[in-house]
Amino acid sequence: MHIQLDGHGPLHAQLTRALKSAMFAGRVHSGERLPPTRLLARELGMSRNTVLAAYEQLRAEGFVDGRVGSGSYVTPPLQISRPATPCEASEPAQSAYARRMRAFHDNARLANAMDVQIRHRFQYGMPLTNPALTNLWARELSRAALYTKPSYPPVQGLPALREAVCDYLARRRGVEAMPEDVLIVAGTQQAIALTTRILLDAGDHVAIEDPQYFATRRVLQIHGATLCAVPVDGDGLVVDALPVRAPRLVCVTPSHQFPSGAVMSLSRRRALLDYAERQGCWVFEDDYDGEFRYDSKPLAALRSLDEARRVIYVGSFSKVLFPALRMGYLIMPPGLRNDFIAAKWAEDFGSPAIEQAALANFIGNGGFERHLRRSTKTLAERRAVLMQGLESCSRGRLDIADSRAGMHVAVWLREKSRAEGDALIAHAQALGLGLHSIAPSYLAPPDRAGLLMGFAAMSPSEIQQGIEVFARCLDHCYA
Amino acid sequence: MHIQLDGHGPLHAQLTRALKSAMFAGRVHSGERLPPTRLLARELGMSRNTVLAAYEQLRAEGFVDGRVGSGSYVTPPLQISRPATPCEASEPAQSAYARRMRAFHDNARLANAMDVQIRHRFQYGMPLTNPALTNLWARELSRAALYTKPSYPPVQGLPALREAVCDYLARRRGVEAMPEDVLIVAGTQQAIALTTRILLDAGDHVAIEDPQYFATRRVLQIHGATLCAVPVDGDGLVVDALPVRAPRLVCVTPSHQFPSGAVMSLSRRRALLDYAERQGCWVFEDDYDGEFRYDSKPLAALRSLDEARRVIYVGSFSKVLFPALRMGYLIMPPGLRNDFIAAKWAEDFGSPAIEQAALANFIGNGGFERHLRRSTKTLAERRAVLMQGLESCSRGRLDIADSRAGMHVAVWLREKSRAEGDALIAHAQALGLGLHSIAPSYLAPPDRAGLLMGFAAMSPSEIQQGIEVFARCLDHCYA
Repeated sequence: MHIQLDGHGPLHAQLTRALKSAMFAGRVHSGERLPPTRLLARELGMSRNTVLAAYEQLRAEGFVDGRVGSGSYVTPPLQISRPATPCEASEPAQSAYARRMRAFHDNARLANAMDVQIRHRFQYGMPLTNPALTNLWARELSRAALYTKPSYPPVQGLPALREAVCDYLARRRGVEAMPEDVLIVAGTQQAIALTTRILLDAGDHVAIEDPQYFATRRVLQIHGATLCAVPVDGDGLVVDALPVRAPRLVCVTPSHQFPSGAVMSLSRRRALLDYAERQGCWVFEDDYDGEFRYDSKPLAALRSLDEARRVIYVGSFSKVLFPALRMGYLIMPPGLRNDFIAAKWAEDFGSPAIEQAALANFIGNGGFERHLRRSTKTLAERRAVLMQGLESCSRGRLDIADSRAGMHVAVWLREKSRAEGDALIAHAQALGLGLHSIAPSYLAPPDRAGLLMGFAAMSPSEIQQGIEVFARCLDHCYA
Repeated sequence: MHIQLDGHGPLHAQLTRALKSAMFAGRVHSGERLPPTRLLARELGMSRNTVLAAYEQLRAEGFVDGRVGSGSYVTPPLQISRPATPCEASEPAQSAYARRMRAFHDNARLANAMDVQIRHRFQYGMPLTNPALTNLWARELSRAALYTKPSYPPVQGLPALREAVCDYLARRRGVEAMPEDVLIVAGTQQAIALTTRILLDAGDHVAIEDPQYFATRRVLQIHGATLCAVPVDGDGLVVDALPVRAPRLVCVTPSHQFPSGAVMSLSRRRALLDYAERQGCWVFEDDYDGEFRYDSKPLAALRSLDEARRVIYVGSFSKVLFPALRMGYLIMPPGLRNDFIAAKWAEDFGSPAIEQAALANFIGNGGFERHLRRSTKTLAERRAVLMQGLESCSRGRLDIADSRAGMHVAVWLREKSRAEGDALIAHAQALGLGLHSIAPSYLAPPDRAGLLMGFAAMSPSEIQQGIEVFARCLDHCYA
């Protein structure tokens, strides 16, 4: 019997998988007897216990019948259709939405292929790994699982979590909201997706910052919005550059502009809200990493200045806890509350209850803010190492954006074109260092070499090692 | 100091909430000293420890500063805007989608108001409560939390879960799929939502069963689909009644028609697939409770007979585990794979990773199928009690749909109009019994009195008590 192990995980699991493959591939047929465990163990050079464990697993899963001693027989499958023929040919796009997805969306990104040659990567969006959080979260989840109702959770989110979010926002972000204003969502991505559906028809105009967070732009494009890119300077979105013909929606990241790092000034904040009120348009305020600040108090959120009730305020737990959680919240303007809740219902009936309950408890018992303080300290150290490294290798060649918050830094290479920047990135990659161009964050990328350098997922020594390689690449680029 | 407790939960938590309310309402100002614990304890008739616990909590959350002994002072808030004025006036609908939501969607349903007067309710969609599952799941979650990567999970779902789903489907449902065909989604609701976006433009035609699952119908209506209701008989969807002008999509529940209970015959299955192939339309196969069958082997799923690759097969873990989980899977036809994955990305980047890992393990270690066997046994008992009760109180007045699967039964009242059925439901409600009309499950409800009776969430004795009240209501109705 030909058995091909795949080398992943414990031997008995490998053997179980290999035997299943043999069944699926038709190399072992239903009713056939599997080789005696002693024989197979000898043949494969495994201990008999390993083979027994694999057979036991197959039996537990219903793939084989019989008992030790009398032989294991492959059970007849319910009905197995022929194996899927590998057919990668796509149908033509079936809807305007699908057509836009194909036009705007780079499916290769979804495959998320990681180049194993890369030793260090300054990648944005990789989380700070925190073993203490892992243990705390395991405990919270297990407790929440014991006390959470098994029925459908409220569409809007568990009341306990919505209350905890309100307490937290009042204390830390100056946002006063009531639990009935809060919608629990599957992260910022779902927040913008729901917003597009309830506010925008295909073709409607939306103003976005340029540069901007690429995923928000993609969702808007896929929805069919007509985008108007508005420049950003050191004070954030240039409100005077907003179009005279009002868009339906303006998307901003005022607390820490993504990716430039600018903090929107108070006067710009007021000007933007005036514009929104005058024009009757909506403002999507993405407060994606406002918690992580290193030397400044945050300014009041747009939502806290919003007397006309035009602001949709969005916060994410993915950035401050871990992305695998897929949870965030949206503070709804009163006039759109029913639409948002109905749209959430129409998408998924509401977010998973146990993780909501765990999070409510974690916020309520103070664990969440202890975690934030710890993370901010760790991130501040990493940021300091990166900034120091960049300054020491700059020698007048780099413009480092003065970002005092978040998990990344924007770095420009003086007097270098975008193509020269791409060459530097390719060179770094050949040396095992992952660098990322800032160009994809622009609707209209400037012809300058710029990098978006994330530092959350690297230890100080990894950052230092990365910087050493980066310095060599810089020298090569400016040689 | 005026303190108003709300009576929910432990005293110290009530006091904490009451003190926060006082701060938000401006009855206690920033910088002000809270009453000494001894004094407040005496005033409220609480133990001093209770007051200490509340103060400690407020301190942990940053609402007060200071230490025991030197007094607790209310900290200045970051910036508190004026309390939200209660403003329930909705904006006009902002998009065609929002307009359709308002037209089709009953927002009152979302409030999910429960009448506390009702003692027993034969409600569909309430889960079987299973303390053993609760403990197992708490353990799986906590283990998964320790071993799951904190970064963004793959959009399509964790490979381990997709593999486990394939194993399970091959063994139990006769569906052979490869892990690359599987998309992990937030339940059946998200499966239909993604399907509408990638397949349908507003106005496109969709054939649905009549009766049908109301949530699927609503999602289609909200998306703007033009619905064509096709009748159902004892063999499931009447394929010959499908429109001559092909719809883009046909939505069916072949393994256990919702809510009639019919099982689609094999010849109808083949006829439907022929129709789909001939017309080039898609089939959405919702296998929502196919696991719970009491006296029959399931027929092969449409997906397992689908040579033309037109079937989108959907399964839910909400029904077989618990709805609060919000997880399901979709088997994608190869030609739509990239579109489905991109649409999932555009909605939420992928489902939460820890619950996926826990589920993969729960399926892999056999716990899931042990749970299914246990649940099926419990449900079979409950169903038997219900059927017996219905038969004994029928006295020729009831037509009980012969449903040998699932968690509900359709019951028709002979020679009674819909209005008479509604009167019976109102009468039952007055006697503390919750009954549910089958009419909302129809696009074109017949003028007959029919009930949709769920039995999963009631114990046998609760079912018996419910039946006693039901018998009295029947007597009243036929008096």
